[in-house]
Amino acid sequence: MKALVYHGPGQKSLDDCPKPAIQAVTDAIVRITRTTICGTDLHILKGDVPTCAPGRILGHEGVGIVEEVGSAVSRYKPGDHVLISCITSCARCDYCRRGMYSHCRDGGWILGNVIDGTQAEFVRIPHADNSLHPIPAGADEEALVMLSDILPTGYECGVLNGKISPGSSVAIVGAGPIGLAALLTAQFYAPASIVMIDLGDNRLGVAQQFGATHVLNSGREDVAQKIRELTDGQGVDTAIEAVGVPATFELCEKLVAPGGVIANVGVHGTKVDLHLEDLWSRNVTITTRLVDTVTTPMLLKTVQSGRLQPAKLITHRFGLGEILQAYETFGHAADSHALKVVIEA
Amino acid sequence: MKALVYHGPGQKSLDDCPKPAIQAVTDAIVRITRTTICGTDLHILKGDVPTCAPGRILGHEGVGIVEEVGSAVSRYKPGDHVLISCITSCARCDYCRRGMYSHCRDGGWILGNVIDGTQAEFVRIPHADNSLHPIPAGADEEALVMLSDILPTGYECGVLNGKISPGSSVAIVGAGPIGLAALLTAQFYAPASIVMIDLGDNRLGVAQQFGATHVLNSGREDVAQKIRELTDGQGVDTAIEAVGVPATFELCEKLVAPGGVIANVGVHGTKVDLHLEDLWSRNVTITTRLVDTVTTPMLLKTVQSGRLQPAKLITHRFGLGEILQAYETFGHAADSHALKVVIEA
Repeated sequence: MKALVYHGPGQKSLDDCPKPAIQAVTDAIVRITRTTICGTDLHILKGDVPTCAPGRILGHEGVGIVEEVGSAVSRYKPGDHVLISCITSCARCDYCRRGMYSHCRDGGWILGNVIDGTQAEFVRIPHADNSLHPIPAGADEEALVMLSDILPTGYECGVLNGKISPGSSVAIVGAGPIGLAALLTAQFYAPASIVMIDLGDNRLGVAQQFGATHVLNSGREDVAQKIRELTDGQGVDTAIEAVGVPATFELCEKLVAPGGVIANVGVHGTKVDLHLEDLWSRNVTITTRLVDTVTTPMLLKTVQSGRLQPAKLITHRFGLGEILQAYETFGHAADSHALKVVIEA
Repeated sequence: MKALVYHGPGQKSLDDCPKPAIQAVTDAIVRITRTTICGTDLHILKGDVPTCAPGRILGHEGVGIVEEVGSAVSRYKPGDHVLISCITSCARCDYCRRGMYSHCRDGGWILGNVIDGTQAEFVRIPHADNSLHPIPAGADEEALVMLSDILPTGYECGVLNGKISPGSSVAIVGAGPIGLAALLTAQFYAPASIVMIDLGDNRLGVAQQFGATHVLNSGREDVAQKIRELTDGQGVDTAIEAVGVPATFELCEKLVAPGGVIANVGVHGTKVDLHLEDLWSRNVTITTRLVDTVTTPMLLKTVQSGRLQPAKLITHRFGLGEILQAYETFGHAADSHALKVVIEA
């Protein structure tokens, strides 16, 4: 089968690979119909993710059709239409039983990281009963690719951890797909303001269309000063970090009000300065989280009801044979204005 | 009257000062019967607290007798026996109405900081109705001095923010008065283990007497390794930072388990390294808090019932005329083995 293979920092190719086979009774093989590329895949290609070894098929998002199941899989059968969670969950270990599937002792984020992923014609999904979701009949399959990772990530790591609530003030630093996913799901909770902050005017324009009440270009504007003006000098109740570099995290430290929350969503490759000399007395909370995908079934309902429209995030479409071009387009988003690129396998 | 006056970094003296007078209708004048010295007073004397100007009478803890009240004070009258909260609260502003008295717009931590404090024969207490607590008849006045600051601080900033719960694992870094206050109040919640960490064997011995399940001397032992051994390699559910320097905060980052909390209690004078490259995916929460003293009435009940015995923390007693000696004793705790020193005015 065709698959996008990581060959070490900066190197990838579309290769012919063996079709995956059932290895455990709880496995399923899924024929991928649509997948996508994540910012995390770009991190891997930079060499930032040491757990991902050369030779790995990348990708942890996708939808498809069940091809084959192990003897212990009871919720799915060949032919079923399924959404793949980026997080594999055994549902039995101590972390899974606390709802912290991200730290499953036999799963977590393994797809396209320590086992082969979804940027391929077929993928093996361990613990299939707990790591797939049924796609309702008539659903827009393409839109649901956004529910493998980015929507639960923006929602769980940003909105839920950030304790967004009616009337609250929110700043989201980074208007990429994850920041926009947080923007879309933040609106479930009727905050009074959502300020989107980015360096790109195109992305800020998208954010306005998606419901941001204010946008700030951090390349041109003194964001901390503007936020003070917008919040009577207090800062925001919730600052969501959706970039993953020290400057944006440290900006969140300046934006948060006493009693507020900094919800980190970004994948960080280096330490940051935490200004406890200012923050020790400000009654703030800082959270980190690898998405658990515990909310995916709920998010599916909001998509079905029309309340959430994740297809908005899709800007480009490619065939699997064009995946190198898809990476180019996604990796140069400032020029291409790409948000999410969907790949049809 | 006699009062301990800050005269700039490294300088203090016991001076004759004017007795305070009512300035607002919500003020009370309290005749101090007992006060104490806080680690924060030592921070001021190091010059770490720029809001505290030379000429200031120090101290934000104490008990006494109401001497005089302004015309709008309704809960107290001359002769009442009262506990002074380290936090002044107007009870009307937005922060007070959220229970965040620490950030009261006309109060917060002002005593012995931006207004004259309690290390004196008399003190003026603004917003007296909301900043004093009645002392029950027959109560041990001396023990209640511990409820002005350190017990609510250890409890609110450490135990409550740290989400200590039955069966959980706890590490408290720093076995000074605040760390010990957290240790005492953590036991309300029946955690499975409380590991106390300090450089001083004397304090660790005290911690064992106070209910620590394990003690570790960070000068001799590899604390991170020991904690891994004690927790099946996972780390602790709650790490409480009760020192206020980068090394101890950064130690907490190494001790906390996935899904756990770092509850900062220490007063920090400089930034720390936050290792987001490790923590971004570990689903941790970091909290900071200036004590709100919202739990002081509850803590008073636990003292009255005998469940909490704060008098254990008192190691030395002095008269107000000996306060410079009291500072010496408290400031050289490694030699004097002082925890809290009570000063009788």
